[in-house]
Amino acid sequence: MNIGILGLGTVGGGVVNVLAKNQAEIMRRTGAQIQVTHAAVRDINQSRICPTKGIQLTQSPLDIVNNNSIDIVLELMGGTTLAKELVETALKNGKHVITANKALIATHGNELLALAKDHNAHLLFEAAVAGGIPILKALEQGMSANQIEMVAGIINGTGNFILTEMRDKGRDFADVLKEAQELGYAEADPTFDVEGIDAAHKLAILSAIAFGCELQFDKVSTQGISQISGEDVAFATELGYSIKHLGIAKKLNGKIQMRVHPTLIPKTRLLANVDGVMNAVLVKGNAVGPTLYYGAGAGDEATASAVIADLVDIIKGSLSRDVLGWQSLEATPYQNQDDIESIFYLRLLATDKPGVLADITAIFANHHISVEAVIQKQIDAQDNAHIAIITNQVKTKDINAAAAAIQQHDSIQEEVKIIHVETLD
Amino acid sequence: MNIGILGLGTVGGGVVNVLAKNQAEIMRRTGAQIQVTHAAVRDINQSRICPTKGIQLTQSPLDIVNNNSIDIVLELMGGTTLAKELVETALKNGKHVITANKALIATHGNELLALAKDHNAHLLFEAAVAGGIPILKALEQGMSANQIEMVAGIINGTGNFILTEMRDKGRDFADVLKEAQELGYAEADPTFDVEGIDAAHKLAILSAIAFGCELQFDKVSTQGISQISGEDVAFATELGYSIKHLGIAKKLNGKIQMRVHPTLIPKTRLLANVDGVMNAVLVKGNAVGPTLYYGAGAGDEATASAVIADLVDIIKGSLSRDVLGWQSLEATPYQNQDDIESIFYLRLLATDKPGVLADITAIFANHHISVEAVIQKQIDAQDNAHIAIITNQVKTKDINAAAAAIQQHDSIQEEVKIIHVETLD
Repeated sequence: MNIGILGLGTVGGGVVNVLAKNQAEIMRRTGAQIQVTHAAVRDINQSRICPTKGIQLTQSPLDIVNNNSIDIVLELMGGTTLAKELVETALKNGKHVITANKALIATHGNELLALAKDHNAHLLFEAAVAGGIPILKALEQGMSANQIEMVAGIINGTGNFILTEMRDKGRDFADVLKEAQELGYAEADPTFDVEGIDAAHKLAILSAIAFGCELQFDKVSTQGISQISGEDVAFATELGYSIKHLGIAKKLNGKIQMRVHPTLIPKTRLLANVDGVMNAVLVKGNAVGPTLYYGAGAGDEATASAVIADLVDIIKGSLSRDVLGWQSLEATPYQNQDDIESIFYLRLLATDKPGVLADITAIFANHHISVEAVIQKQIDAQDNAHIAIITNQVKTKDINAAAAAIQQHDSIQEEVKIIHVETLD
Repeated sequence: MNIGILGLGTVGGGVVNVLAKNQAEIMRRTGAQIQVTHAAVRDINQSRICPTKGIQLTQSPLDIVNNNSIDIVLELMGGTTLAKELVETALKNGKHVITANKALIATHGNELLALAKDHNAHLLFEAAVAGGIPILKALEQGMSANQIEMVAGIINGTGNFILTEMRDKGRDFADVLKEAQELGYAEADPTFDVEGIDAAHKLAILSAIAFGCELQFDKVSTQGISQISGEDVAFATELGYSIKHLGIAKKLNGKIQMRVHPTLIPKTRLLANVDGVMNAVLVKGNAVGPTLYYGAGAGDEATASAVIADLVDIIKGSLSRDVLGWQSLEATPYQNQDDIESIFYLRLLATDKPGVLADITAIFANHHISVEAVIQKQIDAQDNAHIAIITNQVKTKDINAAAAAIQQHDSIQEEVKIIHVETLD
C-alpha cells in the first residue's frame, strides 16, 4: 500500500513522524510496512517538522490524486474548495481517502460518502472529531450494540482553555483569548473557535455517526462563549456548576437535536473536570449507559494518531465497506429548536427596588416555569443587583418568551442572559 | 450466522435482551440479522431475566459446542474448568468464541489464543475487562498508531464503591463491604474483589493487549484494599490525594511491570473523580498522549454491550485474523517487583517522644529517600501520634528496607503502612 499525503504541515508532518517512530508497533498490528511515497506541499523548499527522505514531493496535488501507484490519499491540507476537488478526484480514481478536515466532512460529507460508496472506496475521518480521541471508532465499533441516546462533548480545546482560565483564575474572556492566541491555541481570527463553528462541524459529524443520520451541519444551533462573563462563571460556581462549551446531540422520540452552546454542568460530573485544551465526549447508549472518552483534541502527533488508526483499519482490511452503516446515512427529522426542552440559567441586572423579585418570579409563574434556585447580589451603591436563576426543565420557546417579558420590566438594566443547564445524569 | 450461548444468567440474559431491543440498530450496522438459536443452561425450568422463545435450550453444553449449525459460541457461564473444556472444543470445531470470562483468559489465554489461531477461529473477550467500556477495541484499533507506555485503571467496581463510600462518608471498610454485599455489588465471599484478584485478571489481559505480550497473570503483583483504614483516607484527602484501587501496567526500558494496589492519586485527576461502581482506564500512548475511557464495569446490559460489539466485529468480517497482533503475543521480560520505582505514602503510629521524627527522617536519609511532605497528628493522651509521609520516587526495595528499619524503632506502635502514590502526569 502506497500512501500519498496532501499537505505536510502540522498534521501531515505529525503523520510522517509517528509512522517513523512507531514503525515496529504498527507493523506488529498490521503485518504491513506503511510507506508514504508522495506528498503535495505548497512550497517544496520550506522547512518542515518531519524528514522527507524517501518521499517524492510535488507542488501539484493533482499529481497525487491521479497517481496510479498511490492506494490511499491523506487529505491534511484543510479548506473546503481545493481539498474537496482533490478528495473527489481521489475517490473517483478508486483511492481510499482519510481526512482530518471537519469543515469539509460537515459541509460536503453526504456527497463525498456517496461518491466513496459508488467507487468502492473508503472515506474515513476519525481525526476530524476530537483529535486523538478515537471517538468515531468507539461509536461505530465499541458501542455497536447500542442505540445512542446522547452525545455531549467538549470538542473545542481553545474554548475549553478559555473557560478553564476564566473559572480558575477569575480572568476576563478577552484577556484569556489574547493569551490563547499568543500560545498558538487560538487563531488570529478566533471566530471559528469562540463562536462555536468548529464545534458545530464536529457535532454534525458525531451526530451522523451516532445516529446513522445524514450530515446536516445547517441544523446545528450554534452559540459561542464570547458572551460569557466573569459574573456568570462566579454564579455558576456558587450554584455548584461549571460552565463548559458543549456540543450536544440527542435523539428523542425519533427526532434529533443538535446544539453547541455554553452549558452549566454539575461540578461533580467528569466532563466538568475536563480542563484546559483537553477534549472529552460523553456517550449514552441504551445498553451500556453512560461512557466517556477523553484525550487531546489537537496537536500534531495526537491528530496523527487518529489519522494512522484509520490507515491501519484500511490496511488490515478490517472495514467491510458494504456494511458500514454510516456509509448509507438516513434522512432523519430534526427537532425544531423552539421545542427543545432544557433547564436554564438566567442572569438579570436589575435595579433592586421593592417588589422586583416578586414581579420577576410572577413572570416565570405566568409562563409555567418553576424557579429551582435563585441568588441575588447587590453590586453597587445605586442598588443595582445581579439575579441568577435556575429553572426547571422547560421548552426553549417558553424560556425565550419569559425572558422577553422580563426584559420589558422597567427595573432591568441590560439584556437578560440565558444559558443552558444540563445535569448529564 | 447462528449463535449458541453457554449460560443464560445475568450476562447471557442481558445479551438476549439487548439483541432483541436493539435489533434494528444492530442490523443497520451489520447488515445481518443475529439469531441466538441455542443456549445451554443448568436448569431448563428456572426463571430467567430474558425471554427464551425461539431459543433451543439444553442442559448439555457439549450439544452447543459440537453443533454443526452453530457458528459462534458465547461462553457466559464462568469458571475455568468446564468453561475451558467447552471453549477448547468449540475452537477445535472451528467456531468463533466470545467470552466475558476474565479468569479463564487471564489464566489460560495463551493456549486458548494459540488454539484459536490453529483452527482459524476468533477468540474475543472485550467484556472480560471493564464491562461495557470498549477498552480492548480502543487499544487494538483506536490507539493502533501508538506504542502504549502505561495503562492505569479502576477495573473493579466493588472496590471503587467501597473506597468512594469510605472517602465521602467517613465509613469503615467492613461496614461498607457489608452494604456492598447487601446491594449485590460484592459476592458473599468478597476475596476476589477486595483482595485484587479480579483486578489482577483484568490487568493481565489489558497488559497483553496494550503491549502485545503474552498473558502472564502470575507476574501481577497484587494487593487489595482491606488494609486501607479511615486514617489513610483522611490523610490522603488532607495531602491532596484520593485513594483508588488501580491496576497499573507500564512498559519501561523494554520491561513490563504489572501491579494492582491501592494508590494515592492527585484529587484533580479524572481517575480520582471516577466514583462508586464505575470503571475507567487511563491509557498513555506515545503519539496521542493520555486518553481515558469511562463507563459501567458490570451489569447485565453493559456487559452484553461489550459481548455484542465482539459479535458485530465477527459478523461484519471486520477482523483480519491473520494480522491481529495479539493473536501472536510475544514473550516479554517483566520488571522485578523490587526494582519498580514509585512515590510512596507511609503511615506510622509512633509514641511522640522528643527526637522520634528526627530519628525517622534520619532513617529515610540513610536510605537516600527524600521526604516530600509530612503530617503528624497526636491521637490520644498517651502521646501516640500518626505520622504520614510522602516520599520522592524510589525503588520498592529501598522503601521496604527503610520501612523495616523504621519498624525496629522503639517508638513504633504498629506495622508501618506503605501505599503507592502515582501522579499520573
